[in-house]
Amino acid sequence: MSGGVEWALHCCVVLTAARGPVPAARLAELHDVSGSYLAKQLQSLARAGLVHSVQGHAGGYALTHDPADITVLDVVEAVDGARPAFVCTEIRQRGPLATPAEACTTPCPVHRAMTQADEAWRAALRSISIADLAGQVTGDYGPATFEAIRQWL
Amino acid sequence: MSGGVEWALHCCVVLTAARGPVPAARLAELHDVSGSYLAKQLQSLARAGLVHSVQGHAGGYALTHDPADITVLDVVEAVDGARPAFVCTEIRQRGPLATPAEACTTPCPVHRAMTQADEAWRAALRSISIADLAGQVTGDYGPATFEAIRQWL
Repeated sequence: MSGGVEWALHCCVVLTAARGPVPAARLAELHDVSGSYLAKQLQSLARAGLVHSVQGHAGGYALTHDPADITVLDVVEAVDGARPAFVCTEIRQRGPLATPAEACTTPCPVHRAMTQADEAWRAALRSISIADLAGQVTGDYGPATFEAIRQWL
Repeated sequence: MSGGVEWALHCCVVLTAARGPVPAARLAELHDVSGSYLAKQLQSLARAGLVHSVQGHAGGYALTHDPADITVLDVVEAVDGARPAFVCTEIRQRGPLATPAEACTTPCPVHRAMTQADEAWRAALRSISIADLAGQVTGDYGPATFEAIRQWL
């Protein structure tokens, strides 16, 4: 998993506190990270339709949906893509006892095991929303946390 | 996930069919893959105690446990290590509103979400054994498959 996922998730949680669009540079300053690096993650979120960029003087990035409707999986896939970590190279079709390609109409057992695990991983990430994360931040650090972020932004 | 995991899993399934230790070169030939590449995966399995190397004329690799007691997760961790895909860099401790390090006694909500998904992934891989994979191979391609492998080895 790329480091960009972590930054993108933190940005989404922070955006739940914002009164309006937040410039990428302001999000970068809040997180003490390079603006160009963070802009890259925000552009990935924008391409996936999770945030949109508002132009102009009071412009910046804002969430496009209710935070309860954006899942952690949405953010992970926006930044890292939806490709599973396991890539089947059809080992069963190799060597002297190769299974003929035409007999390989379903994924092999190894591939199926990996798909099952990948689906369990995605289901877990799909079960947690940005609103859930924001709620946990409040639970962990108190309600003043988001108020401080809101003031600062 | 590294490509080595796929090869290592296929080797373990093949070893369930073997009457005795199988030389790495023979496994490589069966899979039509470079012997040195496959030897690397087998050495990872040996370091993790999943296979052992028998020296001598009739030597080679053999599973150390009943295939029902070796999980897909065991093989994945033997080859790729047990480190989760998500690495928390403690973003909450950065910037003008940083949470003080001494207040960070538990992982942050983003980290917890990733840990939860990682555990779901590992649980799925832990629920499938090498014996299960071998059983599915027989189910998919018929009981003659392992007999053919046994003869060939």
